[in-house]
Amino acid sequence: MTLVVQKYGGSSVAGIERLQAVAARIAATVAAGHGVVAVVSAMGDTTDELIALARVLHPDPPRRELDLLLSTGEVVASTLLALALEARGVRARALTGAQAGIYTDGTAGRAAIVAVDPARVLDALATGEVAIVAGFQGVCGAGPHSEVTTLGRGGSDTTAVALAARLGAAWCEIYTDVDGIFSADPRVVPSARHIGRIGYTAMLELAQQGARVMHPRAVELGSHYGVPIMVRSSFHPGPGTVIARPGAALPAALQGDCLPMERDKKISGVAHDNNVARVTVTGLPHANFELHRLFTPLAAVGINVDAIAYALDADGHSADCAFTVAESDLAETVQVAGAAAIALGAREVRTRRDVAKVSLVGIGIQDTPGLAALAFATLASAGIPIEMVTTSQVRITCLVPEGRMEEAVRLLHSAFALGTASERAPNRDEEPAEVTLWSA
Amino acid sequence: MTLVVQKYGGSSVAGIERLQAVAARIAATVAAGHGVVAVVSAMGDTTDELIALARVLHPDPPRRELDLLLSTGEVVASTLLALALEARGVRARALTGAQAGIYTDGTAGRAAIVAVDPARVLDALATGEVAIVAGFQGVCGAGPHSEVTTLGRGGSDTTAVALAARLGAAWCEIYTDVDGIFSADPRVVPSARHIGRIGYTAMLELAQQGARVMHPRAVELGSHYGVPIMVRSSFHPGPGTVIARPGAALPAALQGDCLPMERDKKISGVAHDNNVARVTVTGLPHANFELHRLFTPLAAVGINVDAIAYALDADGHSADCAFTVAESDLAETVQVAGAAAIALGAREVRTRRDVAKVSLVGIGIQDTPGLAALAFATLASAGIPIEMVTTSQVRITCLVPEGRMEEAVRLLHSAFALGTASERAPNRDEEPAEVTLWSA
Repeated sequence: MTLVVQKYGGSSVAGIERLQAVAARIAATVAAGHGVVAVVSAMGDTTDELIALARVLHPDPPRRELDLLLSTGEVVASTLLALALEARGVRARALTGAQAGIYTDGTAGRAAIVAVDPARVLDALATGEVAIVAGFQGVCGAGPHSEVTTLGRGGSDTTAVALAARLGAAWCEIYTDVDGIFSADPRVVPSARHIGRIGYTAMLELAQQGARVMHPRAVELGSHYGVPIMVRSSFHPGPGTVIARPGAALPAALQGDCLPMERDKKISGVAHDNNVARVTVTGLPHANFELHRLFTPLAAVGINVDAIAYALDADGHSADCAFTVAESDLAETVQVAGAAAIALGAREVRTRRDVAKVSLVGIGIQDTPGLAALAFATLASAGIPIEMVTTSQVRITCLVPEGRMEEAVRLLHSAFALGTASERAPNRDEEPAEVTLWSA
Repeated sequence: MTLVVQKYGGSSVAGIERLQAVAARIAATVAAGHGVVAVVSAMGDTTDELIALARVLHPDPPRRELDLLLSTGEVVASTLLALALEARGVRARALTGAQAGIYTDGTAGRAAIVAVDPARVLDALATGEVAIVAGFQGVCGAGPHSEVTTLGRGGSDTTAVALAARLGAAWCEIYTDVDGIFSADPRVVPSARHIGRIGYTAMLELAQQGARVMHPRAVELGSHYGVPIMVRSSFHPGPGTVIARPGAALPAALQGDCLPMERDKKISGVAHDNNVARVTVTGLPHANFELHRLFTPLAAVGINVDAIAYALDADGHSADCAFTVAESDLAETVQVAGAAAIALGAREVRTRRDVAKVSLVGIGIQDTPGLAALAFATLASAGIPIEMVTTSQVRITCLVPEGRMEEAVRLLHSAFALGTASERAPNRDEEPAEVTLWSA
C-alpha cells in the first residue's frame, strides 16, 4: 500500500459542499489502494475571523492565548472532514496536532517542528482509517504543562511535508486554489507559463520571494528529506506542479500529472512580493559599529531580515545600513532594531513601506553571465528605479517602488521569454507590453 | 488569599459585551483579594451550532469526533475571556481541560472525571494569574494517544466543582441566567419562592428531576467534598442560592448573599421534566425472566434508567416491565433494550414520549406521613392521571401526561403552600389557580 499525505488549504474546505468534495477526493484515493493522511487548514477565513475577534477584546492579543484560540479552527475542520468521510463509509479519525505527534519548540505564533511522533497516525492507518490531521499546529511538552503552538501562516504545508517525511510517504499533495506553479503570477502576467516540474531550490526561492502557493519552510523540509511534492488545484482537475530533486525518478502516479521535464530553462519564473518594508539606519559610528548588535535582537524575536546593504559614508567615519523585512514585521522591527540603533549611536532610523521585491529565479542564474545585466537593463529601459539588489545562487532580487512592481514583473517575464510559446517576444523599443495585457 | 472558583455558563459569555462584563466581575473578585479560577462554557449556542453542522455532514456523528469538535467551543470562550482580562490589566491564562489537568475515563460524550492534576492551575495562581479553564471537557491519557472527551451537557458545572474540591477552594460560584433556585420554575409558577439556602440532597433531587439550574453530577461532587456552591445570576445583582451541608458554617462572603436559613420546610420545591419517555416491555416470560438482562446492556452504554415498575400479569406466568429514560436517549434505549427483550422472549416493546415527571422534593418527605397522599389527591382532584410513581428519601415523583405537566406543578406548589407569603392558598373546590396565573 502506497502512503500519500494530502494537504487541503482553507479555501478547499470552506463550507459543507467543499468539505464533501474533499471527502470524495480522499475516498477516491483510498479506493485506488492508497493509505491517506489528510492535513487540513481552518475553513475559509476562520483564522482571520478569530484574529479579528481577539483584537476586539485586546489591541495586541498575547501570542500564547492567540495560538490556543487559532488552533481550534483546524480542529473544527478536521473533525468535520472526518464526519464527511464516515458518512461516505470511509473510516476516518480526526487528530489534533498533539495527537498526530507534531512536537514544536514552543515558540508561540511561529513554532518550529522539532519532532514528529507518528504512533497515533500509524495506528489509524493500520486499522484502515484515514488520518485527518489538524494542520498549522503542534504541541510543546505533554500533560498539564503542554502548550499548543501554531506554526505561523502557511504552517499546514509544513505539517503535511513533515508528516510525509516522517512516515516515508511516497509523496505529498498540496491542494490549493491554483493549478500549481507558474513562471509568474497569472493575475499579473496572463501569458505566464505553467511549470510541470521544478526543483526544491528554485521553488524555495520562488516561495520566499512571494509566490504564495507554498510555504517556504515546507519546501525546505521537502528538500531536506527528498519528499516529492505535488501542488495542484482542489477545484478542478488538470496537471499540477511536481517539486522534486532535478532528475530524480518520480512515483508513477505523479508522472502522468506533470508536463515533460524542462532541463534547459535558466530561469524558472518571476516572483513578486509587496509585503516588504525597507529600514535604513543612518550615521552609524563606524569605529565601534558591530553589525550583529543590530540584527541579533531581531533574530531573537524571530524576524527574518532579507536584503542587507551596508556602506560607509563619504567621510569614512560613519556608515548607513539598509535592510528589508516583511511589512507585517515592521512595527516590531522598528521597536527592536530602533532600540539597538540608538544604543549604537546611530543618527536616525528611516522606514519605507512603498517598496516591493521582484525576483528572477532559476537554477541557471549563477552559471550564466549577463542575466543580471539583462534584468537591470530591462528595468532601467522602463525607468523603474532599482533601490536595492540581492542575489543568491538561484535568484536575482530587485527592490522597486511598490507602484511599479507589476510592470517590472511583466517586463522581466517578457525579456526572459518565460511565457507560453504563443507569447510574442516584445520589442523593447516599442510601448511596454503590459498596456495591452490589461486591456481585456 | 481566599481561592474562589467561578463558572460562567454559555449565556453569560454569549458575545463580546458579556465576555467583558464577566471580565469586569472577575477583576472585581481579584481586586477583593481573592485568587480566581474561572471555568467557562462555550459562547451562547456554539455547542448546538456545532452539533447541527456535524449532523449536516453525518446523520449520526461518531461520538469521539463530535467530542473533539465540541471541545473547541470552550477553548474559544476561555481564550477570549483571557484576552478580555488582559486588556483590563488583569493577568490571565486560558487552559484547555487537558492543561487544567482534568482527566476523564475516556467515555466519549459523557466522560466521568477520574482525577484532577492542578499543577498548571496552581502555577498560574502562584504567579498572580487568573486561571481560565475550558469547561465541559477533559482528557484521557497523555501524548499522541490522549483523547479529548466531553463530560456531557452541563459538564462545565462538574469541571468547576471538581476543581474547587481539588484546589480546596473556599467556595464555588455558578453564574447562570437565573437568580438561583426556586420552589418551582418561575416561568410555570410565577409565585415561586426564591430559596436562599438548600442542602445537597434536596438540590440533587431537584436537579435530577428537571431543575436545569445546576447539573446533578456537579451537586453530587459538591456534596461528596463539601464544597459550598453559590448559584447566582451573572446578569444582575441580588441574592443567589447557597448549596451547602445543612447547618454548616458558611464563608462570610456567602452569608450576606443568602436569605436566612429555612429549617422548617418539609418540601423545598416542585421540579418538572418533560425530557422523559416511557418504555414498556410486555409479556416477559416470568419463569426465566432475569431483570438484569434488560438493564445491564443499557447501563453498559451509559443510559440512566429512572423509574422502574414491574408487575406480574394476572395469569402469573408473564410480566410487564415499564421504565423511564431521558427522551433524548429513547432511540438508543429501544435499540439496546429491544434486542434484550427479544432475546428474553417478550411479547412487545411500547414507547411513549408524551409523558413528563413532576416531583416534590424536600428533606422532610420521608419523615412526614401523608405528604404522598396529599400529592396524589391534589392531582386526582384535577383529573390528572398518574401513570407511574417513584419515591426516594427526599422525593415523590409522578409521571403525568406531558400536556398537563405545568398544571400539575402549579397545583402541587399551591397545595403544599410553597409560594411567597403573598400567595393566596387556593381553594381546591374553585377553578384551578393557573387560569388566572397566566392572565397577565
